[in-house]
Amino acid sequence: MIIFIKNTLLPEQGMRHILIDGGRILAMGEDLECPAGAEVLDAGGMAAVPGLVNGHTHAAMTLFRGFGDDMPLMQWLQTRIWPAEARLTEEDVYWGTRLACLEMIRSGTVAFEDMYWHFHGMARAVEESGLRVGVGAVMIDIAGEEQGEQCRRDAERFHAESSRYSADRVRFTLTPHAIYTVSPKSLRWCAAFSEQHDVPVHIHLSETQHEVEECLKNHGVRPAFHLDRQGLLTPRVILAHGVWLDDAELDLIAERGATLVTNPVSNMKLAVGGIFPYSRAAARGIPIALGTDGAASNNTLDLFQDMKIFALVQKHASHDPTVLPAHAAWEIATGARAPLLGQSGRLAPGEKADFLLLRHTAPEMTPEHDLISNLVYVATGHVVDSVIANGKVLMKNRVIPGEEEVLREVRARIERLCRW
Amino acid sequence: MIIFIKNTLLPEQGMRHILIDGGRILAMGEDLECPAGAEVLDAGGMAAVPGLVNGHTHAAMTLFRGFGDDMPLMQWLQTRIWPAEARLTEEDVYWGTRLACLEMIRSGTVAFEDMYWHFHGMARAVEESGLRVGVGAVMIDIAGEEQGEQCRRDAERFHAESSRYSADRVRFTLTPHAIYTVSPKSLRWCAAFSEQHDVPVHIHLSETQHEVEECLKNHGVRPAFHLDRQGLLTPRVILAHGVWLDDAELDLIAERGATLVTNPVSNMKLAVGGIFPYSRAAARGIPIALGTDGAASNNTLDLFQDMKIFALVQKHASHDPTVLPAHAAWEIATGARAPLLGQSGRLAPGEKADFLLLRHTAPEMTPEHDLISNLVYVATGHVVDSVIANGKVLMKNRVIPGEEEVLREVRARIERLCRW
Repeated sequence: MIIFIKNTLLPEQGMRHILIDGGRILAMGEDLECPAGAEVLDAGGMAAVPGLVNGHTHAAMTLFRGFGDDMPLMQWLQTRIWPAEARLTEEDVYWGTRLACLEMIRSGTVAFEDMYWHFHGMARAVEESGLRVGVGAVMIDIAGEEQGEQCRRDAERFHAESSRYSADRVRFTLTPHAIYTVSPKSLRWCAAFSEQHDVPVHIHLSETQHEVEECLKNHGVRPAFHLDRQGLLTPRVILAHGVWLDDAELDLIAERGATLVTNPVSNMKLAVGGIFPYSRAAARGIPIALGTDGAASNNTLDLFQDMKIFALVQKHASHDPTVLPAHAAWEIATGARAPLLGQSGRLAPGEKADFLLLRHTAPEMTPEHDLISNLVYVATGHVVDSVIANGKVLMKNRVIPGEEEVLREVRARIERLCRW
Repeated sequence: MIIFIKNTLLPEQGMRHILIDGGRILAMGEDLECPAGAEVLDAGGMAAVPGLVNGHTHAAMTLFRGFGDDMPLMQWLQTRIWPAEARLTEEDVYWGTRLACLEMIRSGTVAFEDMYWHFHGMARAVEESGLRVGVGAVMIDIAGEEQGEQCRRDAERFHAESSRYSADRVRFTLTPHAIYTVSPKSLRWCAAFSEQHDVPVHIHLSETQHEVEECLKNHGVRPAFHLDRQGLLTPRVILAHGVWLDDAELDLIAERGATLVTNPVSNMKLAVGGIFPYSRAAARGIPIALGTDGAASNNTLDLFQDMKIFALVQKHASHDPTVLPAHAAWEIATGARAPLLGQSGRLAPGEKADFLLLRHTAPEMTPEHDLISNLVYVATGHVVDSVIANGKVLMKNRVIPGEEEVLREVRARIERLCRW
C-alpha cells in the first residue's frame, strides 16, 4: 500500500511530504507529488520524528501494573506476581501483550524487545498490533537438567514455529532469563544456537549487587566474564540492566560488541541501588538502548517519560548537568545507538517507514526553543498524534481501532488472575 | 455560582454527585438532587480527586523552557538566562505566567507558590487564570544597602497593592531569594514584616553544597541556623530545596514549624548532587510539599511527572523500594502534608472546591488495581480532563478558553527576548 503523508514538519529541515511504500520511505520532499491511488494523510504541520524503541520489556506484565507497588522484592514476587503468573494462560498473555501494544503505540514506540511466558501469545498479539518485536519465551532451568532440556526443546520449537509470523514484525530471540537462573550448559547451548541460526539473545545481566556477589562466589568471576566463558558475549546479544558492570566488564562487552539496555525507572523503583554506567559505556562505544522493563515495575511503557528520567539520573549520578544531553537521550530512545535492535532512528528515503506525527505546539511544548529538548524534558507519550510502523498507520488522531475490546478482555481476565 | 457535578467516581467510595457554591463544596452524595438554576457538568464516571499544589516555581520562566539545557550552571545563567531576563518587561512576565497557568491547569495544578520579577505581571496573570498563588517579587540585595532598601520598599508597596487582587486567588508572600543573595539585614526585615502582617515567606535554602560551604565560611553555621539567627525560621516560612540539610538543621526546622518543598527534577537536571532527605524530614513531622521549580530547569510544570520521579529517587537513594509509597507521594503532591500552602488535599463537604476530573480508564491506566498507584506511577498531566478551582470550571474536556492568544503572545515575545 502506498501512503502519502502531506505537510509534516521535519526538525531542522522544514515542511516535507513523505511517500511510503511496502514498509519503506520511498521519497521525501517539499514538492513531492501524490501518486494516484495513494492513501493520503494530512499531517497539518505536525512534526515527524522516528519511532521509539523499547530495548527491554515484559509486555504482558501490563496485566500486573500497580498490583503491589512499594513492596520488598521477594514479598512482591511471592505474594503477588508468582501466584498470579501461575494462573496465566496463553490467552491471558495474548491480551496482556495486546494491552501493552496499545500503550506503546499511544506513546510512540514502534519496536521492542520482549521476554515472557507463552511465545505464541506474545508473537500473535504483536503481529496483530502492527508493531515489531524481538521475542522469546523465558528460559529458566534452576530446577535442574530436566527443566533445562525442556526449555531448550521449547526454544528450538518456537524458533521453528516463528516462521508463522511475518518476518518484518516478529523476530525470534533466545531469552535465557539470567546467569543465576540458567545453567552454564543452557547458556552454552544458547550461544551455539544463536551462532548457528543467527538469532539474537536477550538476557538480564548485572541488575543487582547480589547477582554480582553470587556470581563471584559461584563462578569466581563477575557476570560479564561468566557470560563470556559460556560463549554468550557476542554482537548478537542484548544485555538488560548492566547496573553494576565494572570497567573490566565494560571493556570486555565493548570488545565483544554486545548491546546494553538501561532501565532507569525499573532500577530506581526496585531500588537496586546503582545507576547504569552510561558515560563509561558510551566512552567505550558500546551500543546502548533504553528500556522500560515490564509495567509491573515501572509502571508505564511510555519511553518519553523514561528518556527524561534516564537523562536526569545520569546528570545526578555524575554531578554534571552536561552529561547525556537531550539530543543523546533522544538518539538512544530511537534505537540509533543500538543497530542490533533493527531501527536506525533516522527518517530518510530508504529507511523503514516507522515514524510518529507529534502535537508539538501544545502549551507545555511552547515556546519551542529546541524541539528535541521539548521531546526529552517535557513531552510524554501524549504528544504522539499518529503512528506509522512498517508502512501502516497504526494510530491516527490518537485513535487505535479495537482499543475497547482489549480493555474489556483485560479487565475480565484480571478478576481471575489477581483476586484470590 | 452553583455548580452540580454529576456522576463522579470517588476513590474507595463509589459514584457521587458534587454540589459547589462560592468556591466551597456544599455537599456530596449518591442521591443528591440538582438545585434549580445550577450549572450542570456531567462527569460521566470520571474519577474526582483533589487538585495538585506546586510548592515552588518561577512561573514566567516557561518563557525560557529549553533555552539552553545541559549546560554548566554559570554558563547557562551568563549566556542565556541573565541576558534574556534583562529584557523582561512586566507584560512579558504577565504572558509567561499566563502560559505557566495554562500548563498547570492542563496538568491538574490548582495552587502554587511563585517567585519572580514584576509582581503585578505575575499576580494579574494568576488572578485571570483562576488559579491560586502565593506570590512575591524576588528580593536580592547583593549590590549593597541601596538595593536592600529598594527591595524592602518594593515589598512593602506590593504588599499594600496586593489588595487589588481577590484574596481567594492571590496571597502576597515575601520572597527573599536565598541566604547568599540577601543580606542579614533584609532577612531580619522580612522576619519582622512577616510577623507583623502575618504574611508567608518563601526562600531557597540549602540547594547546593557550595551554598552550605559558603554559609559555614561566612557565618560560621549551616544555612538553617543562619536563617534562624535572622528570626526567619517560623511556621510561616516555605523553604525550597533543602537538599543538603543535616540532622541538626532538620531538628531545628521541625521545632520551628517551617515547611520544606522538594524539587527533585530540578535538582537532578542541574546536578546538585544530593537527594532531598525525605525520610529524615518526614520522621520529624516536618511539613513537606512538592515543587517543579521553574520550567527553565525542569522543563515542565506537570506535577504528575514529578511525583513519580520524587518517589523513584527516594527509593533509589535509600536503597529501599518501600520508601515513599504511592499514597504518600500523592498526599504530598496534593498539599495535604503542608497546611501553610492552603490546600487540604481533601475532597469533602466544607473543603475548597479545587478538584480534578480524570480520564482514569485509558489503556495505560488499565488495569486499575489501585487508582492512586496509577496516578503516581503511570499518569501524566494528560490524565486530567477537567479542572475546578475556587468553585469555577477552568478546563472542561481539556479545553481552556483563550489558549491560542497566550501561545501567540508568548511566541512573539520570545523573538525579542531570546534572539540576539
